[in-house]
Amino acid sequence: MQNEWFSEHDHGLGVQVQLKSHLFSHKSPYQQIDIYDTELGKMLVLDDIIQLTEFDEFCYQEMMAHIPLFAHPAPEHVLVIGGGDGGVLREVAKHDCVKTIDICEIDQAVIDAAKKYIPSMACGYADPRVTVHVTNGSEFVTERQQYYDVIIVDSTDPIGPGEILFGEPFYRSMKSALKPGGIIGSQSESIFLHPTIVTRLISTSHKLFDQCAYAIMFVPTYPSGNIGSCVASLGPDITIPTRTPSPKLQAKFNYYSPAVHKAAFKLPEFGRKIVEKAKRLTINDGGRKSLELFCESKAKIT
Amino acid sequence: MQNEWFSEHDHGLGVQVQLKSHLFSHKSPYQQIDIYDTELGKMLVLDDIIQLTEFDEFCYQEMMAHIPLFAHPAPEHVLVIGGGDGGVLREVAKHDCVKTIDICEIDQAVIDAAKKYIPSMACGYADPRVTVHVTNGSEFVTERQQYYDVIIVDSTDPIGPGEILFGEPFYRSMKSALKPGGIIGSQSESIFLHPTIVTRLISTSHKLFDQCAYAIMFVPTYPSGNIGSCVASLGPDITIPTRTPSPKLQAKFNYYSPAVHKAAFKLPEFGRKIVEKAKRLTINDGGRKSLELFCESKAKIT
Repeated sequence: MQNEWFSEHDHGLGVQVQLKSHLFSHKSPYQQIDIYDTELGKMLVLDDIIQLTEFDEFCYQEMMAHIPLFAHPAPEHVLVIGGGDGGVLREVAKHDCVKTIDICEIDQAVIDAAKKYIPSMACGYADPRVTVHVTNGSEFVTERQQYYDVIIVDSTDPIGPGEILFGEPFYRSMKSALKPGGIIGSQSESIFLHPTIVTRLISTSHKLFDQCAYAIMFVPTYPSGNIGSCVASLGPDITIPTRTPSPKLQAKFNYYSPAVHKAAFKLPEFGRKIVEKAKRLTINDGGRKSLELFCESKAKIT
Repeated sequence: MQNEWFSEHDHGLGVQVQLKSHLFSHKSPYQQIDIYDTELGKMLVLDDIIQLTEFDEFCYQEMMAHIPLFAHPAPEHVLVIGGGDGGVLREVAKHDCVKTIDICEIDQAVIDAAKKYIPSMACGYADPRVTVHVTNGSEFVTERQQYYDVIIVDSTDPIGPGEILFGEPFYRSMKSALKPGGIIGSQSESIFLHPTIVTRLISTSHKLFDQCAYAIMFVPTYPSGNIGSCVASLGPDITIPTRTPSPKLQAKFNYYSPAVHKAAFKLPEFGRKIVEKAKRLTINDGGRKSLELFCESKAKIT
């Protein structure tokens, strides 16, 4: 397998990772799961989409977890939806103030594969505050009312099992599951490649929540080299941290810092305009068009 | 050529662009020059390295030009080294306060190809303040003493004709060519893929200049999806703009804004540490090891 490359294509742009060996291949009831050893460490692939490599997973996991958690003054109860690899769990568990961490992953096979082949990620499951729920996240979240301080949606793309996690009904359920002052942060695709997805998520969040914004982060092994988190709150300004990591905690981070937290919301001009425009839009299709939009959206800067 | 992809590989990571047609191929005395029509617009490739696509060139050109220019209180005389495609020229020419713009590009064939095939970039040459010098930038810069307010080094990678532009002697010459308070900004590779190159440029700049810092920017079609500019000055703090674009000028930008200027220097933690460590290093090899370092540097986050 030397000199073979895994390729992922998205609107005329591709990313490649050099492979060493194919460690695992399994078709679960939900998706095709592959794990490779690569020049960039272990790599998890779901339905031919790169989820992470050990080289740069810290970028995504840290920013997805720490932006909503440090924006909240005292997060105690945290829910992770998706994120079966355990990486976001690992980061959430770094916060001593957190008392319970629920994770709701639909696919047991992803959890098992991560635990066996990528322990550097799956170590998140070892924390005693973690409870694993292997079920549909969009249903699970309707069972709790005003319970969580922070909900993190570490979803796949809006194709397959992740689709429902991009719709307005799910956002309404998350809002109901939050305590007053609660915060959500959701995987929101690249604003370079999928401006229509960003538009939809920001528009929906702006309608339902008091505050919302899009944080951009560098992730070299995603197509276009970046991805975003749509962060929304029932109150707090999410673009600035309300807590500062202790020096001991800060030393554990390779990406996040309070300065990076604030900088992540300072979007390139075209992106700032997309987000501002999205807040003025009203989309009334029940929020179920995300798959269609994902497939239609063109790599176009307007 | 439908469904063919151009691939560029760098330390186990690759980027691909979907091709439509091959418009131009020429071997100049300095390098292989190719221009393609692609799904991302026209694309310029030098020695098999993607220099730009029309889809995302604004990211690089705007940040390379406007960070040093807006950090300077009143730039009048500007030198661009490299940048034969004309994109940085186009951005420099947006500043009304600039009186003269010299461009020193070693390869006439790049200028000619850009003018013929990528007029959206080469329009920079049309500005009457521009003087073109087809010569070696590292020699040209020694001819002027205390003349320029801003020098922008829009180089290729430190292989081939660009190599000399990464060495300490060239940085000494640039320093001599600057007026008091002058500022330089140099293409400085991705801190994810080439931390040793960043280390060298920051270490050299820190030794010679009063201020230096690394600005990171999203550029989806470069390997890892980002690149940096090493910005250094004889005085001014380069991490904040000293001038604000007028609303009319700001409306012309797709990436730059004063907020983005400041945010670009807030590096992910691993990057901040690389830059801080580089400032404490002393490298005394005459600065000629950049090619060797470029080839050696591993995709490793430490």
